[in-house]
Amino acid sequence: MKKVENARVKIIPLGGLELIGMNITAIEYEDSIVVIDCGLSFPEDDMLGIDLVIPDVTYLKNNLDKVKGIVITHGHEDHIGALPYILKDVNVPIYSTKLTIALIENKLKEHNMLKTTKRKIVKHGQSINLGAFRVEFIKTNHSIADASALAIYSPAGIIVHTGDFKVDYTPVFGDAIDLQRFAEIGKKGVLALMCDSTNAERPGFTMSERTVGRTFDNLFAEHKDSRIIIATFASNVDRVQQIINSAYKYGRKVVVEGRSMVNIISTAAELGYLSIPDNTLIDIDQMKNYTNEQMVLITTGSQGESMAALSRMAANIHKKVTIMPGDTIIFSSNPIPGNEKAVSKVINELSAMGANVIFQDAHVSGHACQEEIKLIYSLVKPKYAIPVHGEFRHLKAQAMLADGLGIEKDHIFILKTGDVLELAQDHGYVVGSVPTGSILVDGLGVGDVGNVVLHDRQHLAEDGIIIVVMTLDKGARQVVAGPEIVSRGFVYVKESEDLIDGARDVVSDALYSCLDKGITDWMKMKMVIKDALSCYVWKRTKRRPMILPIIMETEW
Amino acid sequence: MKKVENARVKIIPLGGLELIGMNITAIEYEDSIVVIDCGLSFPEDDMLGIDLVIPDVTYLKNNLDKVKGIVITHGHEDHIGALPYILKDVNVPIYSTKLTIALIENKLKEHNMLKTTKRKIVKHGQSINLGAFRVEFIKTNHSIADASALAIYSPAGIIVHTGDFKVDYTPVFGDAIDLQRFAEIGKKGVLALMCDSTNAERPGFTMSERTVGRTFDNLFAEHKDSRIIIATFASNVDRVQQIINSAYKYGRKVVVEGRSMVNIISTAAELGYLSIPDNTLIDIDQMKNYTNEQMVLITTGSQGESMAALSRMAANIHKKVTIMPGDTIIFSSNPIPGNEKAVSKVINELSAMGANVIFQDAHVSGHACQEEIKLIYSLVKPKYAIPVHGEFRHLKAQAMLADGLGIEKDHIFILKTGDVLELAQDHGYVVGSVPTGSILVDGLGVGDVGNVVLHDRQHLAEDGIIIVVMTLDKGARQVVAGPEIVSRGFVYVKESEDLIDGARDVVSDALYSCLDKGITDWMKMKMVIKDALSCYVWKRTKRRPMILPIIMETEW
Repeated sequence: MKKVENARVKIIPLGGLELIGMNITAIEYEDSIVVIDCGLSFPEDDMLGIDLVIPDVTYLKNNLDKVKGIVITHGHEDHIGALPYILKDVNVPIYSTKLTIALIENKLKEHNMLKTTKRKIVKHGQSINLGAFRVEFIKTNHSIADASALAIYSPAGIIVHTGDFKVDYTPVFGDAIDLQRFAEIGKKGVLALMCDSTNAERPGFTMSERTVGRTFDNLFAEHKDSRIIIATFASNVDRVQQIINSAYKYGRKVVVEGRSMVNIISTAAELGYLSIPDNTLIDIDQMKNYTNEQMVLITTGSQGESMAALSRMAANIHKKVTIMPGDTIIFSSNPIPGNEKAVSKVINELSAMGANVIFQDAHVSGHACQEEIKLIYSLVKPKYAIPVHGEFRHLKAQAMLADGLGIEKDHIFILKTGDVLELAQDHGYVVGSVPTGSILVDGLGVGDVGNVVLHDRQHLAEDGIIIVVMTLDKGARQVVAGPEIVSRGFVYVKESEDLIDGARDVVSDALYSCLDKGITDWMKMKMVIKDALSCYVWKRTKRRPMILPIIMETEW
Repeated sequence: MKKVENARVKIIPLGGLELIGMNITAIEYEDSIVVIDCGLSFPEDDMLGIDLVIPDVTYLKNNLDKVKGIVITHGHEDHIGALPYILKDVNVPIYSTKLTIALIENKLKEHNMLKTTKRKIVKHGQSINLGAFRVEFIKTNHSIADASALAIYSPAGIIVHTGDFKVDYTPVFGDAIDLQRFAEIGKKGVLALMCDSTNAERPGFTMSERTVGRTFDNLFAEHKDSRIIIATFASNVDRVQQIINSAYKYGRKVVVEGRSMVNIISTAAELGYLSIPDNTLIDIDQMKNYTNEQMVLITTGSQGESMAALSRMAANIHKKVTIMPGDTIIFSSNPIPGNEKAVSKVINELSAMGANVIFQDAHVSGHACQEEIKLIYSLVKPKYAIPVHGEFRHLKAQAMLADGLGIEKDHIFILKTGDVLELAQDHGYVVGSVPTGSILVDGLGVGDVGNVVLHDRQHLAEDGIIIVVMTLDKGARQVVAGPEIVSRGFVYVKESEDLIDGARDVVSDALYSCLDKGITDWMKMKMVIKDALSCYVWKRTKRRPMILPIIMETEW
């Protein structure tokens, strides 16, 4: 890639900051756009009834002819989950490593999009040309195999994007992060570093995944006489590998439970990312042929997700596994922020069933801590620093690290979603912004639930609804039927008859006073009824249910 | 108290385990019941619209003549919050220490119950006689001043209840926990120990409150040039005292913000639990007379509560305080499980406004860790161990500690709410159970929201509601008006006209097919309409909104 003098490249995050997870960034140079990652978010607590959230990519749709491809750093939901939705509008080729592409293919299959989507497997060390860019995939370590950093060669200079990463000198599978390549590229001169901030508040170094294997060995040795059940993230293939290793060493059979766990393990095993000794994996229905101390279960549910296998075991509604006193249950995970209570609930339920629950020391993070972040900065020595991946507090923590490493303050950018950062060798600043946003997915509906609907759901959730129906004759002079009052989610009507009777009186009074005054405008009548009832209900209950008057009219 | 041979005392938790916070226990001997604490819970995530949760005390109501009084260990909501509700049915005298009674009086005032409630202040070391019992108040340490353990002398033996406690050898205010008295009572022989389990999973010792004062001093020295804002628990008077001490030392004025903070501080100062140097406390409106580096704000909102002062500052909707770049904001607290995300949101917002947010090292727990728990067991040497206060996992952790200290396994009881544990010198077992439960408080309504209403609220929250209204003539042979369809919280109607039009057709077809078939039973008609619409909506959207058909009838 030849450098062009005074060339300017644009970096545009299209999601990810306001709603953690929707990782997607456009890199733009003249007529070329390359997109990095395409993740989804899980809904915030106030997004009632929403299944998932995807980024608004209007900007890409409006520049469709420029978009050359999507490069994916690794196969976690927050980096690949929005692909099936986005590809419908932005159908460009996808580039990533083998396991990542396989996980994406599983998704495309579900959405029946396998045939219509171009995809290409890239090996670490390889590069692809995408319009004005060349993108090199660099080996990193993370809590899923085949994770990559990207070096994006542009006419304005090189942009290094770490993806989610950690430095693991002794990984369980494959090589350590390619620090030499980071250094080599750094020597060439790097325009900008976009580095993972998730653990930027944590001092020190993240431990090697291999240390968890030693913990498993110790726990297996300590709990020789009981069944062992281990909950972990389905996508952490190396973690699963280590559980299988310990199981084999201690002569146990392994059962895998939970849909996502079964899916990912079979994909990983097929592709050679997981090596399972013969006769080690057994079907869940074969469990009855073995004693407790011959068994290990690997299961989903480490985040207390209510429908996951472990949660169903804890609630005693799992069809094939019943928790027994003496079972050893290991959480090989930390609760993701927001899941603490759900995890604790599962731990309490399992404990109450007599299981011995272990939730310490059987996990390490997949993200770099401060010393690793500093290491990458020191190898890459970028001109500009753009912390990515994390909440604002994490981005800011990395910004402070970059500052401490001597990067000029005005060369460090904490970008908002939609910011257009223009970088050149001699300047870097935010030059504008593009439209972005969150699109809510609820069932089959993509974007048909917006703020109005959400606000109504919140209102309904808080205090329920009171519906007032009445039928008037044409011209609205006479009441033909009603007014009737129906409520849902407000009070237990059978025990609040007096309250409801009073409400009926209030509504009748309001309605007849309208008619007496000759008010025939329905909007006005509804307003009068709503105000009267709302006032009555507040006085009596200090609640504000949604009040919905419905007026019908006869044909004559 | 003379011991009676073969005497049996009953311990009955009436709340607290299934829903953390509702701490209330009945101790019963023949015709005497004494109640320990009377706390409330805050609603779980699935208790939509609920303000707070109080225990069902049917058992006390049914045995009203036996109930001699309520003894309160300390003034936190989870120990006193349900009093105004419970006293309405169980109007017995309340006994506690000075600050605790003052905080209870604040509550009674709000409920206009000051005149109708007997209350008595007890000093540490003093005892009161309540029927067959004598109850001694013993000085402990906790995150609120004037906390007590209780020694309950019964004809069957002594029961020691620690309340919430920690061992603080160097407390900020008043004396250290009265370990000598625990030992003395232990020497007499203790039947049962009911000990705080909150931190029973944590090894070691909880640090002294005084260490936080040193942290404040360091932080004040480090941040001499900026405004300091500290968020902490309103009830932690000692914490507030230490902030005031540091402020005075560094020549800063103190502003107190947040309703509960202002209330508790003024009560504590009046009673002498807080010593504030002259001219240190200023009104929030006087802030403008001082520079930033002359100010400290003490505020509520350390748990990210959406309406608390700090959250309003973070959202830039606080009327009198605007966060400025360079402000130093200290969280002197840890997030209570479940509040992690809310706290993080506030931290992100404050950081984004340019504030420097500090959330480490400025807090210590108010609860005993493992070594303190072992200390209390070793001084008291109970025959029976009944871990209290905490989730099941915490109670179990204490049970394991007790086991490790040599208490026989069948002398350790993890009780469920409602269990009746009968204890005597020669035996101890659960002999039955009494009715208990949670009563939901929503606005002015106590208990009028039950499972049906909550279930409806959850349904409404998830996918909204579709209301179908129609008016039939008397005899239900002809449609006079409708059917009309109104939805709330389902889809954004303007963009889903096609879906709603289809729904109208489905309902019309269902209705007219009923009429054609001569079906006039409203229940049946409603069912047919509901099934048809529900099926249509699921096919089109994969959602299950609540479907509510309303049929009205004309007079003729």
